[in-house]
Amino acid sequence: MFDLILFVVIVSVLALVAALLLTRWVLGKDTGNEKMLEISNAIKEGANAFVKRQYTTIAGLSLLVAALMFAVYFLIGNIDFGIQTSLAFLFGAFCSGLAGIIGMWISIRANIRTASASTRSMNEALKVALRAGAVSAITIVSMSLLGVTVLYVVYQLAFGLTPQEVPFVIVGFGFGASFVALFAQLGGGIYTKAADVGADLVGKVEAGIPEDDPRNPAVIADLVGDNVGDCAGRGADLFESTAAENIGAMILGVVLFPVFGLNGILFPLVARAGGLIASIIGIMSVNVKESEDPMNALNRGYYLTAVLAIIGFYIVTMLLLNNIYFFFTGLIGIITSVLFVWITIYYTERKYAPVRSIAEASKTGHATNIIAGLSVGLECTALPIVTLAAALMSSFIIGEMSGAPHGGLFGTAIATMGMLSTAAYILAMDTFGPITDNAGGIVEMSRQPEKIRKITDRLDAVGNTTKALTKGYAVGSAGLAAFLLFSAYMVDAKLTGIDISKVPVFTGAMLGAVLVFLFSALAIKAVGKTAYSIINEVRRQFKEMPGIMKGKVKPDYARCVDICVQASLKEMIVPGVLVVAATVAVGILLKTEALGAFLMVGTITGILMALFMNNAGGAMDNAKKFIEEGNYGGKGSEAHKASVTGDTVGDPLKDTAGPSLHVLIKLLGTITLVLLPLFL
Amino acid sequence: MFDLILFVVIVSVLALVAALLLTRWVLGKDTGNEKMLEISNAIKEGANAFVKRQYTTIAGLSLLVAALMFAVYFLIGNIDFGIQTSLAFLFGAFCSGLAGIIGMWISIRANIRTASASTRSMNEALKVALRAGAVSAITIVSMSLLGVTVLYVVYQLAFGLTPQEVPFVIVGFGFGASFVALFAQLGGGIYTKAADVGADLVGKVEAGIPEDDPRNPAVIADLVGDNVGDCAGRGADLFESTAAENIGAMILGVVLFPVFGLNGILFPLVARAGGLIASIIGIMSVNVKESEDPMNALNRGYYLTAVLAIIGFYIVTMLLLNNIYFFFTGLIGIITSVLFVWITIYYTERKYAPVRSIAEASKTGHATNIIAGLSVGLECTALPIVTLAAALMSSFIIGEMSGAPHGGLFGTAIATMGMLSTAAYILAMDTFGPITDNAGGIVEMSRQPEKIRKITDRLDAVGNTTKALTKGYAVGSAGLAAFLLFSAYMVDAKLTGIDISKVPVFTGAMLGAVLVFLFSALAIKAVGKTAYSIINEVRRQFKEMPGIMKGKVKPDYARCVDICVQASLKEMIVPGVLVVAATVAVGILLKTEALGAFLMVGTITGILMALFMNNAGGAMDNAKKFIEEGNYGGKGSEAHKASVTGDTVGDPLKDTAGPSLHVLIKLLGTITLVLLPLFL
Repeated sequence: MFDLILFVVIVSVLALVAALLLTRWVLGKDTGNEKMLEISNAIKEGANAFVKRQYTTIAGLSLLVAALMFAVYFLIGNIDFGIQTSLAFLFGAFCSGLAGIIGMWISIRANIRTASASTRSMNEALKVALRAGAVSAITIVSMSLLGVTVLYVVYQLAFGLTPQEVPFVIVGFGFGASFVALFAQLGGGIYTKAADVGADLVGKVEAGIPEDDPRNPAVIADLVGDNVGDCAGRGADLFESTAAENIGAMILGVVLFPVFGLNGILFPLVARAGGLIASIIGIMSVNVKESEDPMNALNRGYYLTAVLAIIGFYIVTMLLLNNIYFFFTGLIGIITSVLFVWITIYYTERKYAPVRSIAEASKTGHATNIIAGLSVGLECTALPIVTLAAALMSSFIIGEMSGAPHGGLFGTAIATMGMLSTAAYILAMDTFGPITDNAGGIVEMSRQPEKIRKITDRLDAVGNTTKALTKGYAVGSAGLAAFLLFSAYMVDAKLTGIDISKVPVFTGAMLGAVLVFLFSALAIKAVGKTAYSIINEVRRQFKEMPGIMKGKVKPDYARCVDICVQASLKEMIVPGVLVVAATVAVGILLKTEALGAFLMVGTITGILMALFMNNAGGAMDNAKKFIEEGNYGGKGSEAHKASVTGDTVGDPLKDTAGPSLHVLIKLLGTITLVLLPLFL
Repeated sequence: MFDLILFVVIVSVLALVAALLLTRWVLGKDTGNEKMLEISNAIKEGANAFVKRQYTTIAGLSLLVAALMFAVYFLIGNIDFGIQTSLAFLFGAFCSGLAGIIGMWISIRANIRTASASTRSMNEALKVALRAGAVSAITIVSMSLLGVTVLYVVYQLAFGLTPQEVPFVIVGFGFGASFVALFAQLGGGIYTKAADVGADLVGKVEAGIPEDDPRNPAVIADLVGDNVGDCAGRGADLFESTAAENIGAMILGVVLFPVFGLNGILFPLVARAGGLIASIIGIMSVNVKESEDPMNALNRGYYLTAVLAIIGFYIVTMLLLNNIYFFFTGLIGIITSVLFVWITIYYTERKYAPVRSIAEASKTGHATNIIAGLSVGLECTALPIVTLAAALMSSFIIGEMSGAPHGGLFGTAIATMGMLSTAAYILAMDTFGPITDNAGGIVEMSRQPEKIRKITDRLDAVGNTTKALTKGYAVGSAGLAAFLLFSAYMVDAKLTGIDISKVPVFTGAMLGAVLVFLFSALAIKAVGKTAYSIINEVRRQFKEMPGIMKGKVKPDYARCVDICVQASLKEMIVPGVLVVAATVAVGILLKTEALGAFLMVGTITGILMALFMNNAGGAMDNAKKFIEEGNYGGKGSEAHKASVTGDTVGDPLKDTAGPSLHVLIKLLGTITLVLLPLFL
């Protein structure tokens, strides 16, 4: 056992060292001219202010939940479990928060360095942005791995638990991680889109000034938003995915203890370590030629990572489980991740029919643009769900063929691990997005020459794609990981089935589904409300300070940032509390079987709605970009105005509600596990 | 047994006689002046053309399905079942089609009579529209009742089946009804909204002419659409609801045969007959004072109907089942229907916060209007689902308390009957909507004085509310009726449970949910595509015949009608076939338990999406009307333009995809039952 744990710890620590070296490399790059630095500092200031207030709020909420959890378990006389779970919860919450903060810390330093590098070459700019993204990605994945491993060892030593008992307790770690992730993603998502919608509507539509124009008072708030939503939020999201998957798979490993012994429990950790190595090599391999589409370079790195992950998976599976069938199920997971990426690209890239259809519908106005966007969003759920269904069924059947008891379920678990083995690479590409977006903003605002803008525009467009495909990947992995958490729930609740033909269980299923709708409504409404105050503020500044539009007076950026911070933090509380309260209510009133249906049908609905919102938003965004390239009349045409409306409508869908739903799905999975003793 | 059946037959026949008398009363009203007649004839012509072509297509599809069904059962050697089911299918399809056609026949005759009556008094106009609606409503409900009853008797006599065997075979009647309903609702829905969106976008937004302006070439197509979508479509929808509920409840009655004997099987039919009587009395009682809000008069009639239905339910329950608990479960159903109506009104009436919030968001433009509308739509799913959950749970618990075996399930069945007992009244109010809408159009186009327009405007506004609340009611009853069909499915498939923690069953559940999304996407896309051709046609006419805008040249109405007919009939095929094909595929590949999950989770998702789309659309429509009343700048302001966009986006949601989903839910329920022998 100890050699395996040692291997995992060494890989995690080495990965953290690699992240440190990459950080030094990124920070060693120059920070461009003074004008650039001024803008970058404004972004940095706004981001720091938001994160400080956000994490103070989240820390308070986490302490409250930990105290409540402990109190409840104390009252029902389950003190040991209360202490262990509450501590694991706080540790998970802390790690998740730290991962988010580190991600943002590097991003707000890399944006200006990317901007400056783009004055020299595209390859250098791409590398700075990707490697800075990698810092965040590697830190997140290795901290999640290290956190679970450390808890696994420490809880055995400190509390005298057996190796089979620990996984049930360290579920608290996953709960802590998802709890923080929910608020980080929600708060960040509300912030970023309220600022974006506000800036776009008054700036582009009313005042007719371009995106990232320094005369727009909301422009800094918008650039800050990219960091707090995409970096901190998605980082916490995927931190949680990997943690939940590790823990869920370990619980299944406990069930399989008679077959594989400790190897079954430790397999997820070792497999994850292998994936981490594959991702780091993939990231370091990326180089782009000046004439080439940067997306090709990123894809090459991704495919290299996938191939290395497959090889690593083969070695780990044969060494630990000695069963080729489980290698095949892992392979299914890796293939599923590639398919999800392709499908997302098809639905959100302007090369393909869906985005084109939205752009064409813009010719007949705002309404037809939105109708087309909504129908693309609804349609795009079909292929991913069929893929997920095929992955589940085939890994289940192959797992059954392995001959191990519960082999089918373990097969689906290993498919999940396969899917998540490239997580660090995907996450690096994702964080690449906001960094290049910010770099583009800095270049635009510091009025660099056209040639340099072209470079950042190209990188920015690639960043939009990577952001979209990460969301596709995150939904897919959330779906698979959720099935793992269901299985763990069934084991823990000692249920033999979840029969939705029973009235209370069906009721639980209905409530799980409606929770997703209500949560989405609250998230979207929050953006609308916050954006509304931004719009009014920008209009006020334009009106009271006419010098702004002439470029003579500097707008009051800080005031817009401040309004956004306050409103978004206020608005994230209600949806967050709703999720926790609804779960507790269903568990207490309808009991464990109904809660299982609540969890499962809530997850299905959550995956569908997340796919719908992410891809509708992504496609409408790119339809606008397609028109801006000069199609259907180009910038300033009626079609363009309609497409801006579509982009704006898509914003809260794709960057607030959608990504928050990934987290919601996993939060449901961990919260039901942690609170289970209350409902038995 | 025969006295009960005789009672049901006599009530149905008397109800049909009442419908005939009402028809004579409506047709006896005068048809106004020549100008009105000319417009009305144009509408009549367009509607007839559409219906002729639509039902020819539907008849062809129905014959095809019947032949396929027979062939398959012939091949697997189940010839008797094949003949009986196919015949029942064709009979159901025929009755459903007939009900739709009668509904439209009276509507296109009542519109002009309502317009003419409004030149005299509001009370008279209200009565003409409501009683014409009642003709359609009474015909639908009594034909559904009569159809099931006749089949019940004839199948015993002709095929020698026992009273307990018949319900399983006449499921085919429900399948036929829902099959036709799906195409009627889809085709009609695509037609009506494509015409509406097309007419609005070019007319109101581009050319700046008011709604129903005779210069708009798409105006007749728009008025025709109200009839084919709302009258024929919703009529077929509720015909299907009542039929499916009768059959599902009879199957449960078979299970309870040892307890209640034949009374249990016949109870649904007798209870329905009681509700029919209550509704007719309610309809005839409606009178409005000139100074009064017409909605109050309709509400008085509704409450009277509900009270009479409760009394009737008490008598029927005590006579046939002699168990007071089942009366209480019926009462829960009636209360649920009232709650659904109230909730819908809250979310779609301009008096309340949701619509106001959308209107306010219109001030900041198109995008914020849509964002607000979408969030209202998502939010409004919560209360209905909680109501449905409470109704299911409480009727289940009270049913269990009755002491009868399976009493809980039978309790939920009786709650469904309670909910549907006021169906005829609700349906009359619904058909009232398109009739007043058309009357308003005729008054507008024939340029009647302001005073008369005010009357039709008020009635039209009431019609919008009744249309919205019927949809709420239809979703609620579809939800409850679906649970009935699940139970019948479980009985028929001899399943003891549907365990979604099994991988294949969970897969079935995912596929059921995604079917709803894909179906919605196709429905919405169809509207977008069809509207697009209308818009281009209208633009062409304006361009090539400049005299139109000056009012000197009559536009080519027929060409717009024709384009709409062709496109909508073409577009309805794919989504319709998708539903049937997906069900067959899941049944064959994943077997009966997974198909059960497909059905149940598909239903949950369908209810949610239908609520979302119906209410988002309804609220956005009324937000526009609220602004048109002079708020936030009134007609012509920027806020108004934004609200017109919202209304247009809402159109395909609330009148095409949403209502088609009600039918989809019930179609899934009947098709799984009918095709079950294939999957066993």
